[in-house]
Amino acid sequence: MRCKIQTAKPQQFIDITAKVVEAVQKSNVQDGLAVIYVPHTTAGVTINENADPDVVRDIISALDNTYPADGEYLHLEGNAHAHIKASLMGSSCTVLIRDGKLLLGTWQGIYFCEFDGPRNREFYVKIISG
Amino acid sequence: MRCKIQTAKPQQFIDITAKVVEAVQKSNVQDGLAVIYVPHTTAGVTINENADPDVVRDIISALDNTYPADGEYLHLEGNAHAHIKASLMGSSCTVLIRDGKLLLGTWQGIYFCEFDGPRNREFYVKIISG
Amino acid sequence: MRCKIQTAKPQQFIDITAKVVEAVQKSNVQDGLAVIYVPHTTAGVTINENADPDVVRDIISALDNTYPADGEYLHLEGNAHAHIKASLMGSSCTVLIRDGKLLLGTWQGIYFCEFDGPRNREFYVKIISG
Repeated sequence: MRCKIQTAKPQQFIDITAKVVEAVQKSNVQDGLAVIYVPHTTAGVTINENADPDVVRDIISALDNTYPADGEYLHLEGNAHAHIKASLMGSSCTVLIRDGKLLLGTWQGIYFCEFDGPRNREFYVKIISG
Repeated sequence: MRCKIQTAKPQQFIDITAKVVEAVQKSNVQDGLAVIYVPHTTAGVTINENADPDVVRDIISALDNTYPADGEYLHLEGNAHAHIKASLMGSSCTVLIRDGKLLLGTWQGIYFCEFDGPRNREFYVKIISG
Repeated sequence: MRCKIQTAKPQQFIDITAKVVEAVQKSNVQDGLAVIYVPHTTAGVTINENADPDVVRDIISALDNTYPADGEYLHLEGNAHAHIKASLMGSSCTVLIRDGKLLLGTWQGIYFCEFDGPRNREFYVKIISG
């Protein structure tokens, strides 16, 4: 499944859990894997707390303190920091499926990680039965 | 396979390789993938050296120097640092299976990464044939 | 598929996309996953920009600023920094396969991440149909 997403800020984590749940339901797969894949190099995907939105804000701030947008980089497009953060979060997440449901922990949400927005973005959800 | 684990320290990496090997053996799968999944948001999983225990201590210290437990964060539960570290290590690891065995390198062990312990924790091991 | 690789520098990202494409073609799999796995503990794998080589140089520099080779570590082999960076990039990457092709974004390349070279290294590519 291919999903389009519009980000609204330069750096922003967007909860895409509902889209992944939808992909699992449509697939009718009872046991297997859901792989979320981000085809960008200045955005990534991660799993973290879905309750207090300050958690993902802290992750963004912490990464930005270590790899600031206005740091000294060779890459001249002004988004080198975003490439670094994308590799740190990673371009894919794998979640287990059991009894037709995503086996997420109680507090876990799946987040699209925008580091060079706002932009039109996309991600894929691939369901593997097994 | 669902595995329970009891961590003993605030921050600690625990070698869970034997549990993953056990899951592969029980599955009787000869070729495929083993996915280790952590359903927590202040713990993760990573693969690193299994010989010198100082290596994982260095990883914990290095992450803690960059994202200290007593840093300034918005999230008020005192474990924002643990959420950040969990996303950096990731919530899953994928290892290959060949001839019924985990295809780990000589020095590789699979580590449960506790960043907000001690706690009762769990992880899943899912075997995919293919 | 097992691939050998010779790195040339202490820290270097090497584009291995062509090898992964080759593994997908040989497998004849039309839909599924390609998992790239690195069996080392001082090297990893990541996906990032394939156009401007300064991007991966910036990633190497940024990680090295945060976790310098000559920092203070317990591990006495002089490569503790490389172990830390390996866990940050990760030991595997998963890419989707559709219509017999890797579903990479336009600017995405798959990089073997050497952090303790130069060395003879290897990586595996596993194709899962589904």
